Amino acid sequence: MNAKNNTNEIIKEADLHALGKRAFQKLGLSEQEADDVVRILVLADLFGLSTHGLSRIESYGDRLKIGGINPRPNIRMERLAPAMIGLDGDNGVGPLVGMRALNAAMDAAAEFGIAVVFARGSNHFGPISPYSLIAAERGFASIIGSNASTTIAPWGGSDARLGNSPLGFGVPNPGGKPFLLDMAMSVVARAKIRNAFKRGEKIPDTWGTDIKGNPTTDPKAALDGFLLPIGGHKGYGLALMVDLFAGLLSNAAYLTHIKSWQDEPDEPQNLGHFFILIDTKRLGSNEWLSARMLDFANILTDSPPADQSKPVIVPGMIELAKLERQRSQGIEMSSDTLNLLRQYCGV
Amino acid sequence: MNAKNNTNEIIKEADLHALGKRAFQKLGLSEQEADDVVRILVLADLFGLSTHGLSRIESYGDRLKIGGINPRPNIRMERLAPAMIGLDGDNGVGPLVGMRALNAAMDAAAEFGIAVVFARGSNHFGPISPYSLIAAERGFASIIGSNASTTIAPWGGSDARLGNSPLGFGVPNPGGKPFLLDMAMSVVARAKIRNAFKRGEKIPDTWGTDIKGNPTTDPKAALDGFLLPIGGHKGYGLALMVDLFAGLLSNAAYLTHIKSWQDEPDEPQNLGHFFILIDTKRLGSNEWLSARMLDFANILTDSPPADQSKPVIVPGMIELAKLERQRSQGIEMSSDTLNLLRQYCGV
Repeated sequence: MNAKNNTNEIIKEADLHALGKRAFQKLGLSEQEADDVVRILVLADLFGLSTHGLSRIESYGDRLKIGGINPRPNIRMERLAPAMIGLDGDNGVGPLVGMRALNAAMDAAAEFGIAVVFARGSNHFGPISPYSLIAAERGFASIIGSNASTTIAPWGGSDARLGNSPLGFGVPNPGGKPFLLDMAMSVVARAKIRNAFKRGEKIPDTWGTDIKGNPTTDPKAALDGFLLPIGGHKGYGLALMVDLFAGLLSNAAYLTHIKSWQDEPDEPQNLGHFFILIDTKRLGSNEWLSARMLDFANILTDSPPADQSKPVIVPGMIELAKLERQRSQGIEMSSDTLNLLRQYCGV
Repeated sequence: MNAKNNTNEIIKEADLHALGKRAFQKLGLSEQEADDVVRILVLADLFGLSTHGLSRIESYGDRLKIGGINPRPNIRMERLAPAMIGLDGDNGVGPLVGMRALNAAMDAAAEFGIAVVFARGSNHFGPISPYSLIAAERGFASIIGSNASTTIAPWGGSDARLGNSPLGFGVPNPGGKPFLLDMAMSVVARAKIRNAFKRGEKIPDTWGTDIKGNPTTDPKAALDGFLLPIGGHKGYGLALMVDLFAGLLSNAAYLTHIKSWQDEPDEPQNLGHFFILIDTKRLGSNEWLSARMLDFANILTDSPPADQSKPVIVPGMIELAKLERQRSQGIEMSSDTLNLLRQYCGV
């Protein structure tokens, strides 16, 4: 692959979608399945979440080539109860498994008011906010989570035994902007610690611990150690709950049973996800919901800012504004990612 | 009432339950309804969560006497969809509304695999962990939340516009200890800041802001200002999501529409809660679940502690150990609370 050159290009959404779809087809996916995968990853790029967007073609592609991810999975679903579905992703590409689970959960929630899909046999499924947005656009509130390979020590422990598991929420707003929250449980991402290290700066002692589990202000020591969860034992507890719902209850791997895709790229990870969908159309009319959502947002954004240059924001606002801007003006993508996609497409 | 004397007494669970039940009956509740309320509050005291246990007789009692809470509510439920129920608490005592919602959610989840109850017209419903425990003992995993009167400024804002809304999770462990997480969204409770102020100590600048919304190390300034949420914008987002599900979607009050029970004790608060229950018996056998739960806990507690004097714990462990100890040896209660209960009972 080319050396990283850190340049960016602007590309239209439709062109990026077509390029990504062709790349995944060349990697062995069917047309429809490549379309589902790319829908999630392009939404991530539209939101500005480039680390979880089509840049993932790098790890997904490597693993598809060596059989670490199954390009033609036989995804099976079992109705465990009227509003509860178990899904086996058969080690397919994560966003494909995620889209199947989301669609099944929306269909069942439309029938019963609420539904849950527990997915196992999956892989990294992208960020959560694209799923929450798709659900919100169809009137569904959502609580979605996934487990992840281990980067966090138990609270008070000294080795990595749980993942920085993401948890996401979405609430629809008919005719307006939904509220979307997509959060991992660490105070900061590892990339932020890496950047401090590159700049020779110290870090707050709330970001990470050294290899022995002690809080540190040395970014190098934190990179060798573990991320700290938000709110200490609270974030630790939340990360565990996400893994219990996404991994343990779904019959997937959990905690240290999850293999690292970096250390063992040719092995199935058996990640798990859960999708809880609620049909808000059963709660009231679109007019009722949108009036309440508008009032809710206004109460928050009307708070005088502590710093005049920084107006109060609500969850999802920045990402949705970026999505709107990039949909009309094109998406800013790293040339490295685009070149890798082009390489897979043979163009 | 007596001046606070800060002494404690040990009382047996059955005696505390009987005393509490009689006090609530004297305050106008029916026998069955007083029983439900006291079940939750005694569980809180058994867990050692004394600020959320029968000490609440003080505020609940004052409000019941002046009509701020309805002692004989007509609690109504509407089946909005097969697995979705809307509940109107008719301004009843919070733990009564909570128990009705929990029972309805468990019944519907037993039928459909998952169910949700959205409750409105409620009041402070105690801590969440007692509900999660009752559910876990019957095989239900739970996600439960409530909104609360405003104590937190929007992230970057400068006045209190959202509550320190609690969110709880529970996962059953047949034959063993369930995992229970019950967390509010602030870094610390106000009581912890008050204690630092009494001792003349500074506080970390992550605990609260002054009245203008700026982080402060002065406990007095923080007491006049606002609590800071865990993980900054992450905890802010979580608190909003809990209010959206518990308050906005349930058709209850939310954000600044919630009246303070301290400033307006005679007014209905119209708090909202949500109860999402999942029947784990649909996912696998008790043996399957308990083997996975035991393995999950062992992986965590086997992590060598960073500080040898502090073994790694898992969520709910401390509270459940306290419950077991106090069930056999008696519950430690403040004499003030017991005297107030006795006063209401006329003994």
